[in-house]
Amino acid sequence: MEYRIEKDTMGEVKVPADKYWAAQTQRSVMNFPIGPAASMPIQVIRAFGYLKKAAAFANEEHGVLPTEKRDLIAKVCDEIIEGKLDDQFPLVVWQTGSGTQSNMNCNEVIANRAHVLNGGKLGEGERPIHPNDDVNKSQSSNDTFPTAMHIAAYKMLVEKTIPGIEKLRDTLQAKAEEMKEVVKIGRTHMMDATPLTLGQEFSGYASQLSHGLKALKATLDHLSELALGGTAVGTGLNTPKGFDITVASYIAKFTGLPFKTAENKFEALAAHDAIVESHGALKQIAVSLMKIANDIRLMASGPRSGIGEILIPENEPGSSIMPGKVNPTQAEAMTMVCAQVMGNDTTISFAGSNGHLELNVFKPVMIYNFLQSAELLGDACVAFNDKCVIGIKPNHKRIKMHLDNSLMLVTALNPHIGYYKAAEIAKKAHKEGTTLKEAALQLGYLSEEEFDKWVDPSKMIGSLD
Amino acid sequence: MEYRIEKDTMGEVKVPADKYWAAQTQRSVMNFPIGPAASMPIQVIRAFGYLKKAAAFANEEHGVLPTEKRDLIAKVCDEIIEGKLDDQFPLVVWQTGSGTQSNMNCNEVIANRAHVLNGGKLGEGERPIHPNDDVNKSQSSNDTFPTAMHIAAYKMLVEKTIPGIEKLRDTLQAKAEEMKEVVKIGRTHMMDATPLTLGQEFSGYASQLSHGLKALKATLDHLSELALGGTAVGTGLNTPKGFDITVASYIAKFTGLPFKTAENKFEALAAHDAIVESHGALKQIAVSLMKIANDIRLMASGPRSGIGEILIPENEPGSSIMPGKVNPTQAEAMTMVCAQVMGNDTTISFAGSNGHLELNVFKPVMIYNFLQSAELLGDACVAFNDKCVIGIKPNHKRIKMHLDNSLMLVTALNPHIGYYKAAEIAKKAHKEGTTLKEAALQLGYLSEEEFDKWVDPSKMIGSLD
Amino acid sequence: MEYRIEKDTMGEVKVPADKYWAAQTQRSVMNFPIGPAASMPIQVIRAFGYLKKAAAFANEEHGVLPTEKRDLIAKVCDEIIEGKLDDQFPLVVWQTGSGTQSNMNCNEVIANRAHVLNGGKLGEGERPIHPNDDVNKSQSSNDTFPTAMHIAAYKMLVEKTIPGIEKLRDTLQAKAEEMKEVVKIGRTHMMDATPLTLGQEFSGYASQLSHGLKALKATLDHLSELALGGTAVGTGLNTPKGFDITVASYIAKFTGLPFKTAENKFEALAAHDAIVESHGALKQIAVSLMKIANDIRLMASGPRSGIGEILIPENEPGSSIMPGKVNPTQAEAMTMVCAQVMGNDTTISFAGSNGHLELNVFKPVMIYNFLQSAELLGDACVAFNDKCVIGIKPNHKRIKMHLDNSLMLVTALNPHIGYYKAAEIAKKAHKEGTTLKEAALQLGYLSEEEFDKWVDPSKMIGSLD
Amino acid sequence: MEYRIEKDTMGEVKVPADKYWAAQTQRSVMNFPIGPAASMPIQVIRAFGYLKKAAAFANEEHGVLPTEKRDLIAKVCDEIIEGKLDDQFPLVVWQTGSGTQSNMNCNEVIANRAHVLNGGKLGEGERPIHPNDDVNKSQSSNDTFPTAMHIAAYKMLVEKTIPGIEKLRDTLQAKAEEMKEVVKIGRTHMMDATPLTLGQEFSGYASQLSHGLKALKATLDHLSELALGGTAVGTGLNTPKGFDITVASYIAKFTGLPFKTAENKFEALAAHDAIVESHGALKQIAVSLMKIANDIRLMASGPRSGIGEILIPENEPGSSIMPGKVNPTQAEAMTMVCAQVMGNDTTISFAGSNGHLELNVFKPVMIYNFLQSAELLGDACVAFNDKCVIGIKPNHKRIKMHLDNSLMLVTALNPHIGYYKAAEIAKKAHKEGTTLKEAALQLGYLSEEEFDKWVDPSKMIGSLD
Repeated sequence: MEYRIEKDTMGEVKVPADKYWAAQTQRSVMNFPIGPAASMPIQVIRAFGYLKKAAAFANEEHGVLPTEKRDLIAKVCDEIIEGKLDDQFPLVVWQTGSGTQSNMNCNEVIANRAHVLNGGKLGEGERPIHPNDDVNKSQSSNDTFPTAMHIAAYKMLVEKTIPGIEKLRDTLQAKAEEMKEVVKIGRTHMMDATPLTLGQEFSGYASQLSHGLKALKATLDHLSELALGGTAVGTGLNTPKGFDITVASYIAKFTGLPFKTAENKFEALAAHDAIVESHGALKQIAVSLMKIANDIRLMASGPRSGIGEILIPENEPGSSIMPGKVNPTQAEAMTMVCAQVMGNDTTISFAGSNGHLELNVFKPVMIYNFLQSAELLGDACVAFNDKCVIGIKPNHKRIKMHLDNSLMLVTALNPHIGYYKAAEIAKKAHKEGTTLKEAALQLGYLSEEEFDKWVDPSKMIGSLD
Repeated sequence: MEYRIEKDTMGEVKVPADKYWAAQTQRSVMNFPIGPAASMPIQVIRAFGYLKKAAAFANEEHGVLPTEKRDLIAKVCDEIIEGKLDDQFPLVVWQTGSGTQSNMNCNEVIANRAHVLNGGKLGEGERPIHPNDDVNKSQSSNDTFPTAMHIAAYKMLVEKTIPGIEKLRDTLQAKAEEMKEVVKIGRTHMMDATPLTLGQEFSGYASQLSHGLKALKATLDHLSELALGGTAVGTGLNTPKGFDITVASYIAKFTGLPFKTAENKFEALAAHDAIVESHGALKQIAVSLMKIANDIRLMASGPRSGIGEILIPENEPGSSIMPGKVNPTQAEAMTMVCAQVMGNDTTISFAGSNGHLELNVFKPVMIYNFLQSAELLGDACVAFNDKCVIGIKPNHKRIKMHLDNSLMLVTALNPHIGYYKAAEIAKKAHKEGTTLKEAALQLGYLSEEEFDKWVDPSKMIGSLD
Repeated sequence: MEYRIEKDTMGEVKVPADKYWAAQTQRSVMNFPIGPAASMPIQVIRAFGYLKKAAAFANEEHGVLPTEKRDLIAKVCDEIIEGKLDDQFPLVVWQTGSGTQSNMNCNEVIANRAHVLNGGKLGEGERPIHPNDDVNKSQSSNDTFPTAMHIAAYKMLVEKTIPGIEKLRDTLQAKAEEMKEVVKIGRTHMMDATPLTLGQEFSGYASQLSHGLKALKATLDHLSELALGGTAVGTGLNTPKGFDITVASYIAKFTGLPFKTAENKFEALAAHDAIVESHGALKQIAVSLMKIANDIRLMASGPRSGIGEILIPENEPGSSIMPGKVNPTQAEAMTMVCAQVMGNDTTISFAGSNGHLELNVFKPVMIYNFLQSAELLGDACVAFNDKCVIGIKPNHKRIKMHLDNSLMLVTALNPHIGYYKAAEIAKKAHKEGTTLKEAALQLGYLSEEEFDKWVDPSKMIGSLD
Repeated sequence: MEYRIEKDTMGEVKVPADKYWAAQTQRSVMNFPIGPAASMPIQVIRAFGYLKKAAAFANEEHGVLPTEKRDLIAKVCDEIIEGKLDDQFPLVVWQTGSGTQSNMNCNEVIANRAHVLNGGKLGEGERPIHPNDDVNKSQSSNDTFPTAMHIAAYKMLVEKTIPGIEKLRDTLQAKAEEMKEVVKIGRTHMMDATPLTLGQEFSGYASQLSHGLKALKATLDHLSELALGGTAVGTGLNTPKGFDITVASYIAKFTGLPFKTAENKFEALAAHDAIVESHGALKQIAVSLMKIANDIRLMASGPRSGIGEILIPENEPGSSIMPGKVNPTQAEAMTMVCAQVMGNDTTISFAGSNGHLELNVFKPVMIYNFLQSAELLGDACVAFNDKCVIGIKPNHKRIKMHLDNSLMLVTALNPHIGYYKAAEIAKKAHKEGTTLKEAALQLGYLSEEEFDKWVDPSKMIGSLD
């Protein structure tokens, strides 16, 4: 590989000749060979694109950056946002905990790319833009990285996670409506219980996700607060007065999202409770989805020796050894995602709690886990929706068989003959393998007419509106 | 011990002669000798007091329970609420996952105690109230236990947790104001950074807790939804029409809290996402408190060989071997509580995600962990507040010493001489052990007047309003 | 309440007149009103009984404590070990993180109780034993508390946890043998698969627990290392030479367990990796038990509309509303315990990782969670064993029905006609609701004789020895 | 893109014309668009290379596969092992929970690549090797995927994780030796305590890692057990007798690692406790490393306003705004890795506990998290070692200053004048800001000669061998 020489305050470093990054990025590459290369999420890099562009505009507006510098910086930022420079960001999550090196990676790439856009040759001549004094002007890693975290997190949530969950919730709701009159046996403690409808079951799932979505959306306000303008420790040293508000409004403008400057910059650098809070809602949704996906595979179990009350789409051969097998693979993908989100919540909570004084230095690991959870949940909801839930059908034959056999219909007799006599009937039928009616009549606690009138599953399911 | 015989649908059981509980409670005592006795939180029992009273009122209102039965049940419930019957609830958390046995414990105690209040003799004669057919009328364990969970959780939050956190937050805010002009060195990555004020640091803590309180309060609405009226599987089988709304309004009336019936009862039995959601906020607050308590012990470290910038109250001798030692013991109690809450969140998420079909059977473990977290956080905030934070004082001498020595004041020179030259000054001073000014003047990058004007910590801390 | 005055280095404190504890214990009572009183596990207090007795013996042996003082201290320690002084230990877990206050509680109780045993009157006259200079001689909280942690943890594991798990493992193994020829349908992905025997399933459970027990026992060696002799920071300041070895041998002698002095005392004070390690094994066992208990409730589900292949004992009425219902309550208690242990592992890992420099100050919360997990797992295994597993019976009728219906027996044809043709047969049978044989013969891929010879469940289960 | 048509038992699928994979892989690509492509760890694919080769050899040895087929399969497997076919494995972690699709991906790639190696043209003509009937012969996804998990996990541990940790442990041990006489102030509760040496502190770190390594190595035996030979449900259906032992010995031979067949195949498919167990040890090591890295950044804090007792290498400019700043970035990367491992442990425990009946369907997420932890820990230990620990130097000047100032040296007086008088001296010195000696002499509790003799830090650090 060919190299050129770049310098920083510590001296010279050899950098791949065809890359825009400079000395500090390269030092990070050499100092942190931890895990796969370039693991810093690309969404964070793109967020830096918005941020650096907004900072250039704000600096220009406050009179501390010439207009031509602003425009040059903005031009490169647009390339970053569009994904044209993705291969210029080789750094890993497991670097400095402030993300300084990724901030400098951005500063360096912008400065060098600007030089080239300006007609310069990489590594030669005077660069029109200085990475620290221009691109990073009025900024510190300590306020830029958390700002990029919030931009990346917020965008992922509103562009992928929330729409994915809403799509699934809507389908579950539609299924609830569609199957609202399919009466089936209920199960509590995994044991036969009183009846309900398949639609009622699905309405519970939809309700869980609606509550989850409400909880998740309630966290967006905290996430919309940006640290930018706090610089090194939250005081805003070296920023023009009002810079924080101006820059936040530019970020809001460029992203189309309601970002605003954080009221308290000291919190915004030293803690990432907004990330903890928002991921807590993602974890809650994972808890819900685990339940939902588990139920669906339970109800689809069989086809002959399980519960088998619903049919799910057959998407692929299920087994490399058992011919003709069909498995609830979408439920499995979903529950694996849920397991991942649970663990990511532990990581984020641990990391969020271990900040010290003016800076939390677990920033990269926090946003890495956050974005993974948010992306996986969004994607998994869509796949689960499209390839499974949307195609769910009741298996009426088995549903009827189970309902007809159930002993727990006896519950309907409580108000008429009391809990103790009803229990006696159920136990007798269970022990002797008979129907409830047979047992009831033998015990003489009620007449056949009464039994038929009182024990009617279609009347045991409450109101269906 | 003396015994009497009690019966249920499975047969006879010997029960301690002087206890109000009956057969099913006693079976649970015998079947679940797991961990210390009576571990079911007393707050759940008290919540059942409200619930059973409200159910009696609602049943009477709907014409399915005679007024005299209502009043007799209500009388016992008042005793339960007042704590007079606490020794009648011997069951453990580690019982059936629906809490059925604790529901029956309540039903049995109320029936037998009512018998005695009514002039009867325990174990003799016809009881005026039947545990299943009267006390449990229009109810199931499956809807009562989650209702008791929500009542207990909500009450704990508004009576202990939130007031405790608010008290601490207010003190932190007052300290922020009180110390708002105490300029000190900032620290990022544990390393010396640019200055800020002690008040600014404390304002960050107050802001964290304000955000946490907001997040916690946002979960109360979900917690206010009650499952009662859903009975066995959510359909409301065996309840009078409108019972759910009536009973919720009585619970609201008796507790003075804004409870309402859950819109979707299927969710309310099969999942406990409201508990997951609300505990997620408690966990977020634990994350914040861990950071705050850690910072305080860091800043109080010393007295001579640590940071030592604040003084905390001396509450007790700190060491059994080192005479005269004073330790940040309140910070330690707090951080231990935070560790507990983190783990409880894992337990609750795990339990919440593992419900099946119509019922989540991790109810007791969920509420046990929830109440522990809520109580410990509330108590720990008060102790931390009263015995530590309220007495924090700046150690002006050490604060000044650190500030005067700092090399990071050089940052103020960036806008004047650029980042690279500023770095050169700092490195020179660090290497040679001199002051920044000496290094700056030797390098000749600025005059003494310029240095004194530009490098002024009191001007590096932003606006203080 | 009546009080007497006690003093420590900070001054006077009022102490309940009838209690043996003194000033420092009382200060802790007043300073840490966090959660229920006396939450410090009694097993830790008892462990201090062994420890203080052993220290007195070692001090006497090394010539720094008179024999009569040794004997007086030992006499009180025996009372502590026997549980006679349990009400003298009012402190909570949420105190100083070194457990200093509980160490002082022991020192104070021993000194005052010795005074009384010696004929003195509590609070009057010169005490023969000084809490710091005699009872705590050659010790610090920093080495005593972790020593008490290891004693309590080790004892709990070998006296309750391991025997409980072994009991359950042995029953599962016996069931595996007992049911080794009960051929049944297998299930993978919750879907019907090729057959195996019920005994084979149970052999997997037994194997899981055997692996878990092996893992748990492998952690005992680390737990057997005692910090005692390290005093304040691990250097052994103020101890006679060889004290650490002597005192460990006395602890081994008094407890009958193979304790030894830790090779590295700095680790032993500053980290509690032995607790983390050992609890990791408990967590692994909880993972296993969750699977086992879940399977049992799945297989017992029904009785009519679930899988229903095994019958479990009916221990109590299952429902307050559904008469005659029997639920897998022991499986539920077990899985709730598993959920608790999972969370406790998070707490312990978090706490274990947050020690600083010479001392980890999360000691009480770590041992509290450890002992809870160890006790609950031991107790739950015994209850699950005695009240459930031991009574499990195959439901031959349903097992046969499922086996006869299964489509996955087709797998046995792969070696004869290939995966693709076998799949065709299974799909045809599934679609048309016929038996495999009917489908196979219609497709003409093999003769009836071949089918009967090749598709024989009893030959599809491998070797049974 | 150009496509060809591939078929499976469900019909035709379009596959990229230049890829070796076939219908089932392509279905997975289409059905699971969840997260970034190709997230299935490449180490699992490579492990499949060993496995499929070993299976071919074992099948040939047992007479069920012709020698020429064996050799053709083995040839492709060698290419997989060497990484030449890495771009043929496009599947994600979030697929079916058995990993069937990745098993089929391997089967398909081997069959098609064999066809080409054999002179055939992709997508044309009769393939010499059938993916199911030849490559997958005597196997199921259910036993191959867990086998690949164990191979990949074991290899990663012995090739990267353990060597990395050992390297760091050895350096810490060498530092302990190198600095064994550097007497410094100890700190407990973050507060000044009695002295020890810097070497003693480092010996504690080395001891932690030695214990962790011992624990980790103790898990290798469980990991060495292979599921292969169990096929669909653990019974070994469709395998030649003895296949399991033969194939394990080939895997051992080809990998050079001591793999053996699992004694109980039912456990090996239905649970992944070996993964849980081994990751538990990784988590324990993360707990240790968190403590170690935290201590190092605490001791290196400053340079002027922190503890500053050690100097760490300056690897990069530390701040984009504060010139000349050097940060403990390697400690930050390490602690972020620790946070990740903590969360991964939650994911793995959750996933491991949620298997059902004959199959755990969280296999991909478990191995994904396992390998991430194992790789990150190994890499981070090397980076932390090479770029930080190896260069640590004592800052003698500050160490001496802190030691000279300390009040806790007073502890050495306990055996001479008692704890209470010693406390009086310390408190007086603290209050009046004097030295201990001044306070001691003023109080008249001992002579100057006695003070100098008794209070000698170099004698307070125990034995140094």
